[in-house]
Amino acid sequence: MSEERLNPLLLCFEGRSPFANRMAEQGDFEEVPVGLHRFPDGESLVRVDARLAGRHCVVFCSLRSPDEILFPLLSVAYTARELGALSVGLVAPYLAYMRQDKRFHSGEAVSARPFAHLISNHFDYLVTVDPHLHRYHRLDALYRIPATVVSAVPLMADWIRRNIEKPLLVGPDQESLQWVGAAAELANAPFILLEKTRHGDEDVDVKLPEVANWRERTPVLIDDILSTGNTMSKTVRGLIAEGFAPPVCLAVHAVFAGQAEALLTEAGAARLVTANSIAHPTNAVDLCDPVLHALREHLKTRR
Amino acid sequence: MSEERLNPLLLCFEGRSPFANRMAEQGDFEEVPVGLHRFPDGESLVRVDARLAGRHCVVFCSLRSPDEILFPLLSVAYTARELGALSVGLVAPYLAYMRQDKRFHSGEAVSARPFAHLISNHFDYLVTVDPHLHRYHRLDALYRIPATVVSAVPLMADWIRRNIEKPLLVGPDQESLQWVGAAAELANAPFILLEKTRHGDEDVDVKLPEVANWRERTPVLIDDILSTGNTMSKTVRGLIAEGFAPPVCLAVHAVFAGQAEALLTEAGAARLVTANSIAHPTNAVDLCDPVLHALREHLKTRR
Repeated sequence: MSEERLNPLLLCFEGRSPFANRMAEQGDFEEVPVGLHRFPDGESLVRVDARLAGRHCVVFCSLRSPDEILFPLLSVAYTARELGALSVGLVAPYLAYMRQDKRFHSGEAVSARPFAHLISNHFDYLVTVDPHLHRYHRLDALYRIPATVVSAVPLMADWIRRNIEKPLLVGPDQESLQWVGAAAELANAPFILLEKTRHGDEDVDVKLPEVANWRERTPVLIDDILSTGNTMSKTVRGLIAEGFAPPVCLAVHAVFAGQAEALLTEAGAARLVTANSIAHPTNAVDLCDPVLHALREHLKTRR
Repeated sequence: MSEERLNPLLLCFEGRSPFANRMAEQGDFEEVPVGLHRFPDGESLVRVDARLAGRHCVVFCSLRSPDEILFPLLSVAYTARELGALSVGLVAPYLAYMRQDKRFHSGEAVSARPFAHLISNHFDYLVTVDPHLHRYHRLDALYRIPATVVSAVPLMADWIRRNIEKPLLVGPDQESLQWVGAAAELANAPFILLEKTRHGDEDVDVKLPEVANWRERTPVLIDDILSTGNTMSKTVRGLIAEGFAPPVCLAVHAVFAGQAEALLTEAGAARLVTANSIAHPTNAVDLCDPVLHALREHLKTRR
């Protein structure tokens, strides 16, 4: 067998990530854990115990805590090239720094840009799921490498259809129209959108539209990122105050910063459900198939 | 006054660092703190509240905890250029990752290289103090930008002359010959070198040479980096067992990982003394003047 026909290597930062394991099982990859050692002085050292020369490599990495993983991540890509990898792609189901897409105050970094610059300088292509595209409408306006965006919407709509009898989808803001609308259509359910005003990291006002017509339905709050849970918990309280059944909270990316879970439970949420772009006990929507499909398309062009 | 004649901006990551403050006072710089905000989700955001367009900028940053500061550091450089800075230099008195200068096991990163690559991609020049040059003998073999190495040796020798009556300098290994020898000559004192064998991050053997002739002298253990303190504490014990007075421990870079201070004190060290490349209560050797001198030389070429 010639070297070019060897399976691509899947270099996994999270050896025990069910997502990466499923990808390796289904995808004809050779899974190799990335050893990550942290020295007592704060430096890190990565190790990939496999022969990389002449191989296509894909790095699988969660960007849930982007600053602490950035150097190990870039270091793996750099090292793979030093050791003769034919290509180095990145599968990051959750793409960090997408919400920092504007200079909100003078002299601030638009962090999405330097972050994209670093990733683009080290990887040949990127596969991610529902990046927070707000002021940038397309990833290729930020990333200089081929980037595939996988949508979790069909799988989330599918979860709603199978689990909620009479759902009312609730989107977090007017910008979510496109994908909440698409999820509602696929789930065959009505939807409403909130009006959101942000005052700070953890200080958000939400305004419910007219909802009297939908009181017999179970609200399903949908967002791309479940971070502090402030918006969602306020919405949960608002809907319960309006006489609704305890809402279900559904999000793609289980960031869960701070006391998010406690906030939502205390507010009265019936259930928290997330996709598995970030490993978390609330994961119930498996993104493995569409991510694998996108990855295979990138690898096809490199064979 | 034309814009070109404005003082350079000193963008300081540590607003209250005495080092940066002294530099700003003495160096005709305009000191501007770098605001560093950490969001609850693990992302960071830097802000420089000054007009950077048309200005020469120098970023002052400690690399004591390199992974967590890397993105903010690169993000500041990126943002300064976006906002029109004429040049962006880096003053990092302690240069991280220099000890990872070899692939110790197959598949490992030689982290010094990807780190140098990142710094070289974002800054125009670098000023640092006594980087750990071991297998790489010069910074320009790693860094693609002009890099000035400031030596702390004269100032450390000066400290020894002023504070220790009859010193015996003790270098950590055979590689330290050049600079321990130079310090000994400047301090007008004899020196010996240890033989060191490293078994792991925190597991080091040291062997003393014949020292009977020097027992009436105060040992001054010198190293470039005081990290875990394992080597030094073993040496302190060894010298005390040989009948020496409690040794003084002198290092350029006060990394002090883990329980280093306690280890050295328990071993019987008389005193811990460091230069101020990393802010620490043991700082007693001020590197401000030579660092400022090196920085002025870089800036001269840009006026």
